[in-house]
Amino acid sequence: MDVISVIRTKRDRGRLSDEQIDWVVDAYTRGAVADEQMSALAMAILLNGMDRAEIARWTAAMIASGERMDFSSLSRPTADKHSTGGVGDKITLPLAPLVAACGAAVPQLSGRGLGHTGGTLDKLESIPGWRASLSTEEMLAVLDGTGAVVCAAGDGLAPADKKLYALRDVTGTVEAIPLIASSIMSKKIAEGTGSLVLDVKVGSGAFMKSLEDARELAATMVGLGTDHGVRTVALLTDMSVPLGLTAGNALEVRESVEVLAGGGPADVVDLTLALAREMLTAAGLPDADPAKALADGSAMDVWRRMIRAQGGDPDAPLPTAREQHVVTAPATGVLTALDAYAVGVAAWRLGAGRARKEDAVQAGAGIEWHARPGQSVQQGAPLLTLHTDTPEKFPYAQEALESAVTISPTTAPFEPGPIVLDRIA
Amino acid sequence: MDVISVIRTKRDRGRLSDEQIDWVVDAYTRGAVADEQMSALAMAILLNGMDRAEIARWTAAMIASGERMDFSSLSRPTADKHSTGGVGDKITLPLAPLVAACGAAVPQLSGRGLGHTGGTLDKLESIPGWRASLSTEEMLAVLDGTGAVVCAAGDGLAPADKKLYALRDVTGTVEAIPLIASSIMSKKIAEGTGSLVLDVKVGSGAFMKSLEDARELAATMVGLGTDHGVRTVALLTDMSVPLGLTAGNALEVRESVEVLAGGGPADVVDLTLALAREMLTAAGLPDADPAKALADGSAMDVWRRMIRAQGGDPDAPLPTAREQHVVTAPATGVLTALDAYAVGVAAWRLGAGRARKEDAVQAGAGIEWHARPGQSVQQGAPLLTLHTDTPEKFPYAQEALESAVTISPTTAPFEPGPIVLDRIA
Repeated sequence: MDVISVIRTKRDRGRLSDEQIDWVVDAYTRGAVADEQMSALAMAILLNGMDRAEIARWTAAMIASGERMDFSSLSRPTADKHSTGGVGDKITLPLAPLVAACGAAVPQLSGRGLGHTGGTLDKLESIPGWRASLSTEEMLAVLDGTGAVVCAAGDGLAPADKKLYALRDVTGTVEAIPLIASSIMSKKIAEGTGSLVLDVKVGSGAFMKSLEDARELAATMVGLGTDHGVRTVALLTDMSVPLGLTAGNALEVRESVEVLAGGGPADVVDLTLALAREMLTAAGLPDADPAKALADGSAMDVWRRMIRAQGGDPDAPLPTAREQHVVTAPATGVLTALDAYAVGVAAWRLGAGRARKEDAVQAGAGIEWHARPGQSVQQGAPLLTLHTDTPEKFPYAQEALESAVTISPTTAPFEPGPIVLDRIA
Repeated sequence: MDVISVIRTKRDRGRLSDEQIDWVVDAYTRGAVADEQMSALAMAILLNGMDRAEIARWTAAMIASGERMDFSSLSRPTADKHSTGGVGDKITLPLAPLVAACGAAVPQLSGRGLGHTGGTLDKLESIPGWRASLSTEEMLAVLDGTGAVVCAAGDGLAPADKKLYALRDVTGTVEAIPLIASSIMSKKIAEGTGSLVLDVKVGSGAFMKSLEDARELAATMVGLGTDHGVRTVALLTDMSVPLGLTAGNALEVRESVEVLAGGGPADVVDLTLALAREMLTAAGLPDADPAKALADGSAMDVWRRMIRAQGGDPDAPLPTAREQHVVTAPATGVLTALDAYAVGVAAWRLGAGRARKEDAVQAGAGIEWHARPGQSVQQGAPLLTLHTDTPEKFPYAQEALESAVTISPTTAPFEPGPIVLDRIA
């Protein structure tokens, strides 16, 4: 087997054989195939595609590159959720304790943000004392004791994916549906969850800009999960507008706690409940009532135990940014658009995200918006509040926001469309 | 400017701007763009193409990455030839002294072989004492004194191409017409020749397997040369059958000397004369008579002076391989096919070529064939002679030759078709 013949096969629009896939994924993980060879192959895959059998084998090879976890010792059924990433997407924070409060075990191995989408671990790390890195034993203990755990994925799960993801990130090959699907699913299958709900984002703030691409990605991932014995469902959800009223780390924790306290923005509550119902049904608990668990405080109880179990203080004040800058509405009318991508880039520029893996994020940085599309705004009233420790970034963030907001003086206030656009099972 | 946006432009079937091309070629040469990024871009170029303006700019950027030579101080017009590479392609050896004997100056900066095609420098290095590496001053002195020089291209010419060629070789991206054309032409234009004849090979032993691809490559290169003020003509020539009766290093020198002595295989003589006439016409010497220069020994005189000027002894016996193995004809009939690619791979396996740049070649290794397509063969009579210093390679070479030879008992002897298939100017 040699790598050039593998590259040529895909370059010339052929099918990769099982042997070629097993060999190239293993050889790349071992370092016998070089980065420049794998990136040429990744580009050929992006442009020429892979069929369902190739994607399944590629995923299996990535799973086989590392260890697999096993939750069969737990007394509860496991349910996990994965979001393809959006702006203001803090859903994991209220969702994991909520589903745990309803009887499932939620092992949520999460990542850090890169680019304009935030990372769940970055958000939770704004809570004083909370730590993301747990050993497998610690993770199982938190999961068993509280019903939910959100922590960093260990290095042992799908190391091929870890290496390939970092390569794709710098070679313009992130946007290949076969590679996105196998990357996500190899980690989730290796993690060993019994059921999985995928939140596939669609719109300007998501990697998938069109419903068609999002459907293809969702169907591919559902197929992979099903083939590996994981009960898998996907919701396609709107990411043309950022979720909730905040994007940032501590800002989103604050909003998540509001949801757990029975309040919070309607779209965050709606999406949290929709995903919770899917997870509970997939886990074999279709009669659980997540709305009740939000209302009666049991989800909040799990949250507090979960944060404490990882060293965090749920009662400590959250960090705030040193400087705020208020942007007022330039006109009176109805807010008709708030572009998710622009808000994500601006929050990132303010310090909420990182440009390179090794960068630190600012816990207090980010953006609040004081109206959502469909609502009225008054000229001169606060529309956005920008938060940062590095005020020299304000102009740079405002530049990103320049055409993010559309206000129509002639449109009547309206209800936003549904957040869940489609369901694929 | 960032490399991911350049990769994305080509990945998404866009045109690269002049600024993108200038930047990415320069940044790659400097090391600011990594190998894995350039290989992803090369694959995107291979699959999505470049238009004529993009190829012209890419070529100009590669020329600008290094120095340019200047032959304007010479009293004679300069004419160069480039072959895209074939099996048994020793044409440069008789051609350079022949064209010099007719009044042009021939600055032939050549390369070493890689894969199944031999390299001109490897062939000449089988002559005792001859050396390929000359300083620019030495090169000009040999060219001025003898009319022809064949030597290694200096590191200063198109360093971007040197780096990119090595990368393409290991990433399955050699076969991109825009990259092949710009690679060849950047070196030839930087070298400073006034006229250039391209020998574009077509057939199993060539990189271009179809006449259509070869025409596209030829037209692209002729356009690039013309745009840079180099009088450029391309001949498309047959490479389904290997050239002459030998493939190997010393074996091909011997055959070349036969041609210079007025003998040699008809196809080698024909192609040498056809290319010589094109070179002399392009150099403004349309009345020169290369057939006469072969017949009267003046081409041989230049050869002997040229070899001596680079330390070689034209009278020294050529090295021979330690072992020979004769393959006899399996049947009586007419040889209808002798596959160039198979012969090239077999010669390479016998030690005439190298697998990696750092490998050495065997001076005596290679293959002789004792009949050409169209000629009769007798069962049991010698058909091929294999030469090597490493006889354990015989079975491996024979394996490559297994279906290389076709003998038909019912076909009448025939004249082979013309070697020059088309001309593009």
